[in-house]
Amino acid sequence: MLIRTHVGISLDGFLATPDGRPTWDAIPTFDGTSHGHDDFTALIDAVVIGRSSFDQAAAEWLVNSPWPGKPVYVLTSQPLPTGSSDAGFIASQGGPAGLVKQLREANLARDVQVLGGSRTIQAFLELGAIDRLGIVVLPILLGKGIPLFAIDPAPFSKQAWDAHLASPSASPARPLLRLDHQRQYRDGSVELVYQS
Amino acid sequence: MLIRTHVGISLDGFLATPDGRPTWDAIPTFDGTSHGHDDFTALIDAVVIGRSSFDQAAAEWLVNSPWPGKPVYVLTSQPLPTGSSDAGFIASQGGPAGLVKQLREANLARDVQVLGGSRTIQAFLELGAIDRLGIVVLPILLGKGIPLFAIDPAPFSKQAWDAHLASPSASPARPLLRLDHQRQYRDGSVELVYQS
Repeated sequence: MLIRTHVGISLDGFLATPDGRPTWDAIPTFDGTSHGHDDFTALIDAVVIGRSSFDQAAAEWLVNSPWPGKPVYVLTSQPLPTGSSDAGFIASQGGPAGLVKQLREANLARDVQVLGGSRTIQAFLELGAIDRLGIVVLPILLGKGIPLFAIDPAPFSKQAWDAHLASPSASPARPLLRLDHQRQYRDGSVELVYQS
Repeated sequence: MLIRTHVGISLDGFLATPDGRPTWDAIPTFDGTSHGHDDFTALIDAVVIGRSSFDQAAAEWLVNSPWPGKPVYVLTSQPLPTGSSDAGFIASQGGPAGLVKQLREANLARDVQVLGGSRTIQAFLELGAIDRLGIVVLPILLGKGIPLFAIDPAPFSKQAWDAHLASPSASPARPLLRLDHQRQYRDGSVELVYQS
């Protein structure tokens, strides 16, 4: 069982528009099954979503799950509403690390998709729990929105540069990721899949 | 004559580390000529840099230009120091739009590289003056640094989502970019080149 993502981001790094729509939905070339979605879905036995994503659509999903027959784990510190369990939604226990344990112990034949939102993906990344980080770089610049990564932008600073010159460091901030594979789609989207 | 970029960014979108070092220099697999640098340099007859980038290295560059025989245009509103002209450095006239005009009128046989920093690339992007936007996605997450794009991050907001549901829009925020080509390097870096 591998824990995977398959998310679409704009070239400037946004997972969703400022109003919360996935970036996929902001491009005219995405039809709900394109950009590797069907291939990916065939690998998946369970889905993980964050509580905000759940709340965003719960009213609809509890009646009509987009993942019929597949358990959907919700990363949350609060109980889910009545009827969630019958509709296939399972609350996490013990935060992100506890949820990873739940997934590993669920005896799934195939893989798990961490769908989002960004905070949920970040929580899994911080734990090193994403086995295949799949990102489709969509050919659009949004300018603003919800970033995939928890980024901390810095302006250029002469002071920081002078400090670097005084005490240079050649070491990378973090280890390199390993690219598992990449593939190009017809609209110029490029999927990058990294191994943990 | 085409105006081009060939920049390395981290997977999370940073052109440089917080201390101003290009992200290229933060990875052990970059040797100064790899990742398509030599192929790219062979296309280039002139270079554009921002004033901060110039000031960062001017003391060294005025003695020993990294681009011998190639004019280097500096996007600036202030005169350059004495000796800049003899060393091949040319001040922009009339802001970014004036600089684009200077480049178009320079009768260059080959192309122009907009080297950076990020504000200079952004100024050219805003003018629609980048003919080939080349970005090498390096296999590293930096977490913090100087972003390539002028990004405006938004947190998820239930209010924004409810507003979207009340008045949905299916139109993309901006037109799609056209992918000219892409290529993968040995360390798992992936170069994406977009046409304007």
